[in-house]
Parts: sequence; structure tokens; C-alpha cells
Amino acid sequence: MTLPSFPVIRLKPKIRPQAIRHGFPWVYDNELVTDRRTRALAPGTIAVLEDAERNALALVAVNPDSRIMARVLSRDLNAAIDAVWLADRLARALDLRKRLYQTPFYRLVHAEADGLPGVVIDRFGDVAVIQPNAAWADALLPQLVQALVDVTGVSTVLKNASGRARALEGLDDVSDVLIGQVLEAPLPVPMNGATYKADLTGGQKTGLFYDQRPNHAFAAKLADGAKVLDVFSHVGGFSLAMLAGGATTALAVDGSAPALALAAEGAARMGVADRFDTRKGDAFDVLAALADERARFDVVICDPPAFAPSKKALEAGLRAYERVARLAAPLVAEGGYLGLCSCSHAADLGKFRTACTRGIGRAGRAGQLIHTGAAGPDHPTHPQLAESGYLKALFYRL
Amino acid sequence: MTLPSFPVIRLKPKIRPQAIRHGFPWVYDNELVTDRRTRALAPGTIAVLEDAERNALALVAVNPDSRIMARVLSRDLNAAIDAVWLADRLARALDLRKRLYQTPFYRLVHAEADGLPGVVIDRFGDVAVIQPNAAWADALLPQLVQALVDVTGVSTVLKNASGRARALEGLDDVSDVLIGQVLEAPLPVPMNGATYKADLTGGQKTGLFYDQRPNHAFAAKLADGAKVLDVFSHVGGFSLAMLAGGATTALAVDGSAPALALAAEGAARMGVADRFDTRKGDAFDVLAALADERARFDVVICDPPAFAPSKKALEAGLRAYERVARLAAPLVAEGGYLGLCSCSHAADLGKFRTACTRGIGRAGRAGQLIHTGAAGPDHPTHPQLAESGYLKALFYRL
Repeated sequence: MTLPSFPVIRLKPKIRPQAIRHGFPWVYDNELVTDRRTRALAPGTIAVLEDAERNALALVAVNPDSRIMARVLSRDLNAAIDAVWLADRLARALDLRKRLYQTPFYRLVHAEADGLPGVVIDRFGDVAVIQPNAAWADALLPQLVQALVDVTGVSTVLKNASGRARALEGLDDVSDVLIGQVLEAPLPVPMNGATYKADLTGGQKTGLFYDQRPNHAFAAKLADGAKVLDVFSHVGGFSLAMLAGGATTALAVDGSAPALALAAEGAARMGVADRFDTRKGDAFDVLAALADERARFDVVICDPPAFAPSKKALEAGLRAYERVARLAAPLVAEGGYLGLCSCSHAADLGKFRTACTRGIGRAGRAGQLIHTGAAGPDHPTHPQLAESGYLKALFYRL
Repeated sequence: MTLPSFPVIRLKPKIRPQAIRHGFPWVYDNELVTDRRTRALAPGTIAVLEDAERNALALVAVNPDSRIMARVLSRDLNAAIDAVWLADRLARALDLRKRLYQTPFYRLVHAEADGLPGVVIDRFGDVAVIQPNAAWADALLPQLVQALVDVTGVSTVLKNASGRARALEGLDDVSDVLIGQVLEAPLPVPMNGATYKADLTGGQKTGLFYDQRPNHAFAAKLADGAKVLDVFSHVGGFSLAMLAGGATTALAVDGSAPALALAAEGAARMGVADRFDTRKGDAFDVLAALADERARFDVVICDPPAFAPSKKALEAGLRAYERVARLAAPLVAEGGYLGLCSCSHAADLGKFRTACTRGIGRAGRAGQLIHTGAAGPDHPTHPQLAESGYLKALFYRL
């Protein structure tokens, strides 16, 4: 049997092949010999990666337009990157989720960690939303979608092209319905005993994120009989879970009217609309206003957008996290709970914890740290990229 | 009202009081002015801590025999450190646990984090085991025990004096029954649907640890229909939880015959003795022997003792963790799960993860990291001591 004649790309002489041999999944553009031929490779081309001594290391997907110029698809040089291969990866990913979740609502594929570099797939029952955030996956999208339908049985597949990652890969931002249709919009999504409403196709593109599921669940365990506040609520992730956990009342605060409307729809669907209230506004302003009103809550959760999306934004981001903690702590009743979240890659756990603890202290409060949460197991990490665990949730008792 | 005339201890001129003002709970001996008078204070003396300008900062417990010479008891200088104060701290601790656990089996007090420096109390239903690991708590033990009975209603209180911490404080190592009696020994302890047997008074002092509870629960979620291996099993923490989670068979490996006997008793009590087996021996030897036998398991968990108990032991400890991973990985079936734990303070999460990932790689395997676990919320941390989160559990899928 002859190998298919893949093009070859090669590591520079000084770049040692050990990282790839030990499982690192990326090769940066400055680690590769680039000439007119490699630069002319179409984004998404499958190639053989060799070391400087021409030993073949792996099958990779090449994108000359990306800083991550090669992504390892398989260390098996005989692998065919075809529908069968894609289906095998998807089946492995599905097996893990089926073991961990009783209903088919989860992140099905989390990119490199699931062996499909740059590919993110969220599943909402019979609907799957795919983000083909690397050129190879965009090029193989028809095969990928077919494999997805074959393996999972979903009837509807949407393409979400809104991610920043696609621009870095030089890909379009055109979202689309690839297969089937969304029969109910917004779609009801069961999680932690609550029901969320996810707008997967509407103009607002609020979507729904699964990564906070275990932290929603932890907050819900604190919520029985409690008056709770959910700041930066989005579609009600924490507040609806806490209502399902027995909260007497929940107030959701967000700057987005469509997100709050979806949260209210979820509460109505759960039959708890009479215990749920919303307030639209800038979260910092609302926190200050609630303090002026001398409002007190048994559980307060703040889940802001990424204040430190890059290393450059780290210092300002940490100050913003400290400010959230300082403004939120006075609203927590004595003996109550404060949950503070960060989805910033650049702010590591230690720095984020220091900012939060300082903010609580500046508010004249003190407490114990009872739980540190992260994204759930449907968001696995590649062991060699594990530093990038971005989601952090700190639960204090004050 | 006059303040009780506590003795005074004072920070050295160069030591700034900010750390204490910001909530740090300890003062080291080299930060204090020590003269004949302070050195003569009885271990456990309650004193007022002042800064160099004689501003009172906090009520502290002093132990001239300990490197941690003062532990903050209260920033309220008018507090009376008496039975009422102790009962208030215990009631706060109990309130948190009652919210999180449906049955009274948990760590009730976790030292500094629960505002009772050096005091550890584990609750097993009507039995409480107290470790008064700081001199002040040893001196106030009768009041502490009475408050414990009043607040929780336990009928039996045991003193466990076996901890290393007591020697550092210059305290005795005499364990005792302080109140009541243990009616059933070993005591059955329900957790995660399993039943454990805890030998709280017997000569073997195997005890039972609550800190791994959330990691036992996560392993149990992976275990349905699985053949599982539990290495360094102690009294069966992971294996019995996995049997409760639906494992078809479990093999527990440990060097301690009494621990394995208790594990087997637990399995019998659960009615799953026919699915449970034990093997006594050195864990490294047994792992090698199982590889020779070409044994394969769907889930393998290794929860060794602290290989890196101190910074000095760090390098050797990390090599030992890598070796565990290298020997365990070949026993995991394709697509199966490997859980690797560390209870070493000195090995931080990043270093431990690197050692484990390397060991798996050296075994010729690769995988995804699906979950990073820590101790449960009945083991809260003091925010200023949060670096010391010692327990780490990494779950890989290979």
C-alpha cells in the first residue's frame, strides 16, 4: 500500500521534535521552514510534518495564514483524515458525554482535547451547533457534518461562525443552518433541574454556554430558602439554577434586554416567574444602587465577561474583578455566600483569587473560601495545554 | 465595662500590621518582640496583639513553643474567648455543613478557615473526633467539647492526638474518649451511596477521611458497568464509591491489611462483596505484577500517600508521582479513565500535572484531562492561606 502523497512541511533545524513526540498539538509559524511552496498551501491542507532530519512526525493541518501554522491531526502517519476518521473521533467524544450526562445537552467536542483541533460542537438535544474554527475543519465541513449526523443522530446542524478564532484563521463569519431546521425558537434546554431558553438562530445570538454547569450546580446547593442575586446574569444561568435549588426569590441583572427576556421565559417555563425578577443596566451601577437601597441577599453571584482577555489587559482586568468583589460583598447578608467568576485566560487562579479577596477586604468583610470551581468535564483540556483552563469560580462565605 | 486584662504581645518595629488588618491569621516568632515575659507565657495564653505603635490589632492565642507564635482568634478586641464564643463559631461551621450535606457525616471544623485556628473536628453522625492541634484549643478543650455537644447534639466525643501538628505545638499525643462511647466499632459511614467502615478507636487508627468525597463522587460517575482498580485504597474510598456507582468489579490494593479488611467489611455491608476483591502489597509491585498479568481496567485510580510532604522532598516526590502514572497507565483499557491524586502540599497543581502527564506519555499513552478535583466544601480554606489547597485529583481519559 502506498501512502497518499501528502505535501511535506518541515521543522527548522533548531526546533527539536520532542514536543510533538510528547503530544504537543501545535506548531507555530516561526518553528517551520517556510518557502514559497509552503506559503502557497491552501488553508486547511493536510500535510506530513517532518523534523529537520526528514523523519515523519505526524499528519497535520496547515494554515499559512495562522500563527498556529500546523495542528496535529494524527500521530498515525497511515491515518486517512476522512469521514470514518471524523466519525471515530466524534464517537469517542460522545462516549465520554453519554457516561457523564443523562440528557443530550452538553459540549460534544472541545477542540484539541477531543482530538479535533479548532472544532467546537455544542449539542442541544436534536440540534448541534458547530464552530469550525480552524481552516481544515472549514474545508472538511460537509464530511464533518455528515459524520456528526451519523454518530449522534441529530436532525439539525447549525454553523456558528461568530467566534474570534475564525478571523485569526482567515475564515468567514457567515453563520448558517447546514441541515434541518430549529423547530422551537428559543429552544428549551434542561440543566441542573432548571430550564433555559437558548436563542441559537435569532438575531441576538445570545446562545447558551455549558461551561458553568458545575458552578451553577454548586450555587444551587447553597440556595435553598435563600434570596439570591445574579449579576451579569446573561440568560439566567445561575439564577434559574438557584430557583430550581429552592431559592425563595432571584434577581437577575444584565445589560442585555434580550438576555433578560430569555431568562424570564425560562423562569416562566419552570413555573417560578413569581419568584424571579430582572433589572436591566450596567452591572457596576446596579450593584451601587442596590447598596444605596441597603438591599441584602443570602447568595450573590457575579459572572462578568472576560475583563482580562489578553496579557495586556491583565492589570486593568484584575482591578475590575476587585471592584466587582468590593461592590458585591456589602450586598451579602452575614453568613451568606458570594460567588465570583472569571473567564479570562490571562488572569490565573492565584491572581484572580487575590483580587477577589482584596475586594472583599476593602468592603470591610472577611470570609472563608469554600469552593473553587472550573468548567465541567464536557470541556476537557489537552494535557499539554492545561494551563489554559480559563474558567474560575470562587465561592466565599462571608 | 473594663476589658479583661490580657497580656500584650507586640510586633517588631519593622513588621507592618497590614497583614493582620487584611485578615492574615498567623504571626511568626521572628515577627514578634520576644523577651523573658513573652517567652514565659503559658502555651495557649490569650493575648492582645499590638503593632509597634501600641495599637491593638487582634486577640490572639500565643504559643512560645511554636514557630506560629500567635494565631488570630478575633479582630474584635472586646470578644470573650469563652464557651459562648466557641459555640458561635461551631454554629457557623455547622450551618454551612447542614446546607451542603443531607446526613451528618463531614468535616465540621477545618481550623483557620472556620475561625478556630488549629482545631479540626470530624463528625460521624453522633460521634465527633476532635484534633485540638493548637495549644489554646488544648487548654480550652473542656469548654470546646461542651460547646460541641451543645451545638451539634453529638453523644460521643473522641480526642485524636496523633497529628504531627501537635508535636510542633509541644502537645502530647494521647488520644482519648472524652465523652460517651463508640457503640459500634468499626462505625458505618454513609457517603456517595457507599458505606464505609471507620475504625475511630481501634488500635490501627485507620480513621476515615472526608476530603476526597467529591473526587470519589466523580469517579463513581465514570464507573457504571466498569471494571475498576483502586490503588492505595486505604479503607476503599474510591472502590466502594465506584461499586455504588455501578462498577461490575473492583479490586482494591493497599499495603495495610487492616485497611483492606475494613474495605471488605464495607463492601459486605453494601451487599457487593461478590464484586469486590483486595490485594495486599506494595502498590508499585502490584502495579507491575498486574501489567505482567496483562490486566486491563476501565477505570484506574491511584491515591498515594504524600510523596512530597516537604519542599525538600519535592523532586523525589514528583518522580514518584510520575512513576505511579507510568505504571498505572498501561493498565487502563483504550478509552478508559485514569484518576491520579496527590495530597502533597509541596507539589503544586502545575508540577503534579506535569509529572502525571509525563508518566502517561512514558507509558506510550496519551489522553485528555477531563476533570481536576480538590477537597470538598467541608474543607474550606482561609482566603489568605488558599495557596495551601493540598489535595489534587486529576482525571484523564486515555
